[in-house]
Amino acid sequence: MAKLTSRAEDYSKWYNELVVKADLAENSGVRGCMVIKPYGYAIWEKMRDEMDRKFKETGHQNAYFPLFVPKSLFEAEEKNAEGFAKECAVVTHYRLKNDPDNPGKLMVDPEAKLEEELIVRPTSEAIIWNTYRNWIQSYRDLPILINQWANVVRWEMRTRLFLRTAEFLWQEGHTAHATKDEAVEETEKMLEVYAKFAEDFMAIPVIRGIKSPSERFAGADETYCIEAMMQDGKALQAGTSHFLGQNFGKAFDVKFTTKEGKIEHAWGTSWGTSTRLMGALIMTHSDDLGLVLPPTLAPIQVVIVPIFKGEEQLAQISEVALEIQAKLRAKGISVKFDDDTQNKPGWKFAEYELKGVPLRMAMGPRDLENKTVELTRRDNLTKESVSIEGLDNYIEELLQTIQKDIYNKALKFREENITKVDTYEEFKNVLEEKGGFILAHWDGTEEEEEKIKQETKATIRCIPLANEMEDGVSLISGKPSKQRVVFAKSY
Amino acid sequence: MAKLTSRAEDYSKWYNELVVKADLAENSGVRGCMVIKPYGYAIWEKMRDEMDRKFKETGHQNAYFPLFVPKSLFEAEEKNAEGFAKECAVVTHYRLKNDPDNPGKLMVDPEAKLEEELIVRPTSEAIIWNTYRNWIQSYRDLPILINQWANVVRWEMRTRLFLRTAEFLWQEGHTAHATKDEAVEETEKMLEVYAKFAEDFMAIPVIRGIKSPSERFAGADETYCIEAMMQDGKALQAGTSHFLGQNFGKAFDVKFTTKEGKIEHAWGTSWGTSTRLMGALIMTHSDDLGLVLPPTLAPIQVVIVPIFKGEEQLAQISEVALEIQAKLRAKGISVKFDDDTQNKPGWKFAEYELKGVPLRMAMGPRDLENKTVELTRRDNLTKESVSIEGLDNYIEELLQTIQKDIYNKALKFREENITKVDTYEEFKNVLEEKGGFILAHWDGTEEEEEKIKQETKATIRCIPLANEMEDGVSLISGKPSKQRVVFAKSY
Repeated sequence: MAKLTSRAEDYSKWYNELVVKADLAENSGVRGCMVIKPYGYAIWEKMRDEMDRKFKETGHQNAYFPLFVPKSLFEAEEKNAEGFAKECAVVTHYRLKNDPDNPGKLMVDPEAKLEEELIVRPTSEAIIWNTYRNWIQSYRDLPILINQWANVVRWEMRTRLFLRTAEFLWQEGHTAHATKDEAVEETEKMLEVYAKFAEDFMAIPVIRGIKSPSERFAGADETYCIEAMMQDGKALQAGTSHFLGQNFGKAFDVKFTTKEGKIEHAWGTSWGTSTRLMGALIMTHSDDLGLVLPPTLAPIQVVIVPIFKGEEQLAQISEVALEIQAKLRAKGISVKFDDDTQNKPGWKFAEYELKGVPLRMAMGPRDLENKTVELTRRDNLTKESVSIEGLDNYIEELLQTIQKDIYNKALKFREENITKVDTYEEFKNVLEEKGGFILAHWDGTEEEEEKIKQETKATIRCIPLANEMEDGVSLISGKPSKQRVVFAKSY
Repeated sequence: MAKLTSRAEDYSKWYNELVVKADLAENSGVRGCMVIKPYGYAIWEKMRDEMDRKFKETGHQNAYFPLFVPKSLFEAEEKNAEGFAKECAVVTHYRLKNDPDNPGKLMVDPEAKLEEELIVRPTSEAIIWNTYRNWIQSYRDLPILINQWANVVRWEMRTRLFLRTAEFLWQEGHTAHATKDEAVEETEKMLEVYAKFAEDFMAIPVIRGIKSPSERFAGADETYCIEAMMQDGKALQAGTSHFLGQNFGKAFDVKFTTKEGKIEHAWGTSWGTSTRLMGALIMTHSDDLGLVLPPTLAPIQVVIVPIFKGEEQLAQISEVALEIQAKLRAKGISVKFDDDTQNKPGWKFAEYELKGVPLRMAMGPRDLENKTVELTRRDNLTKESVSIEGLDNYIEELLQTIQKDIYNKALKFREENITKVDTYEEFKNVLEEKGGFILAHWDGTEEEEEKIKQETKATIRCIPLANEMEDGVSLISGKPSKQRVVFAKSY
């Protein structure tokens, strides 16, 4: 097995190679669209199931809305339409026919042209708010708390596996409320659901914040986000929650009678996370040997590798290994006993390191004699010899420890790579030499933001929610500012 | 609440009304596409989770392949292409722009025409086998056992909620094997997975069979199916499993080295079920009051309705009801305690009958005194007064009984509506007067099949796998035949 390019050598190449070699995803025969392979999909399923549980716990229900958005609905909310019009796949015909000039080939049937073009959803506010109009008459019909798991298409020109693909999988929550306060509360609640999910389940520390107006979702009054730091110091937006005001309520004429008998437009939110999270997962934890998966997300949590010569030794080891496997499974731990005889232990070690299996258990004849096994942690590669007695409890706790350690390692890295700067000169130096997140004052204008972006490629990732107020002056215009914002280059 | 049209009055209208009134689904602003509402989606989720469990249990893994199929891949397997070309949505452009003639409106940007048109997948054999080519080199790479949960689009002209929609949700299994025998075995195994799922989980008895050549999946060598009987006597195909031979292996040049060092094309299967199953569920069990759901699929299995005057009575009943609810939930039974004070008990009874909640528990002041509750079964509407003591165990068993009774009722109905006929005259009479499934001899030709279809609208649903061999003569041509096949009108 050829080694991965190291992160130090070429971070971007390392990522691309790792995604493919670890069997997570690959490019398909369709421009910009990926195939999510079984191992990658198994990780995504775990994310999905946990988020789904959290959504339901907070009172949301799943539903499913059409893939297509008729052009007239798509353009109804102007800002939203403007934001997505430049990158959308358009269905114009509904039939193919035999190509008379090319036997065996097909062509679009010009007689099967649609009266109205259909946009493959890049996001579903339009189709959903068009539906909500019929569901909402009275305040009693509110709130509507719905989530959808779906595929969406955005015709990106430069694509990268998981990070930016023409088609991706995501969930999109769409809620409607009777009051502004309730909608804002929902927006913030779902941001916190995402933040907790990222931290507790994916072991990725995130900064909760608000986007600057120029980075807002098209059609939102306010966009909340969680931002994570990758190992190259760049930021990755790991989830967004939008307060939509009455923008879609008005565009789609969704009105209701209040308790007091008045007619008002409904208030909205939407919030989403996507298979992009797979990219965040990979780039937060993994190393030059391959994936590092937090135990919560690992399809295989423990792999048992027998070290043996000949069938008799294998049989002896198997007997003990299968007992251990049964005990671990009884605790809900997923275990693979790899008794394949084609590949050598060294090959297997490398393979499971590449795949990010959190814990490797090696068992040889001497271990059998001593009633021990050798455990190797994937995250920090430490080895220890552990008694078979009580092993199941030991491993259960160790997996929890690994989960915490992976999180803390990522947190430490992030904290070490956040720098406060007070001058634009310093800003450029830090960005150039150290990278990471930069906390600096901003004058609140699009002009300053844009100038910094043009000159440094760094953008405002967010205005942190947990900000301390502090007097300062902005980087370029020197205008007074009350708080620092997070600047970074980003994915 | 207006009553449903009765089945006797207009079965088709009854179905359409029920789907909408029970909050399962509705038509959307997009021609032929449906919105699956939260209550309908919750039922679909239960189906999906159970099938997913069964697929994984039989060694399959989930993955995800692109929504779009480039035209050149789409047309590679000729029969498959021919079968779907007439009803597919085609993406031709990837951008909209402002319409200069209509301010505020968008138009397709003619400069953003795709070099090659993309077909929105009607099924994924093409895109998947094009991927498998790179995954398969040696017999060691086989079998590949993959399933995908996805949306697909078939541009049907006449659509009906769940039964026939332009977009629907489904799962599609796609496997590749080294030998014909193994592929046939897989095809049959998955048919049996479907059959067991339909019978044990959906309480729908099915006939396992093989399609006649004219009803085969486009691109398959053999199509296996399960056929269910709806309450109007019509058949509904509830799942299909296809033996693809080497058709896709050859069309996409998927070759491998055998153990013996020879080069061969891989053998394939594909198998699918869809949101159509929701239609089967509704039409098999439901009645003029609304849905009848088997307990396995009911989002709410037990509803507790308090019968009270005034707040004090409600408080007293609530105390006991919440205790019962907790005990039932501890057993994994989903319970709703409906203490809403806006709607009267009678309204609630009708509502939960419409929604198909399997068991209703009414509790009034007299029940409280007697330490009893009144249980009403949704399936047969029988009522009984039951002691609160041991109620949780009683209900747990009763739900299992209901599950069986619903299945047996459907089975009895089907058995009563299968008729053996030996002449075409008889065939036409039975079809006209009684309907249902007709077992008759067929000469094995497309001509006879087509003539019967033209004259009676009945088609061959399948050649049952469990057929007894029996000498007979076919309906029209009078040629000798060795077994009867199932004829019926169908959805």
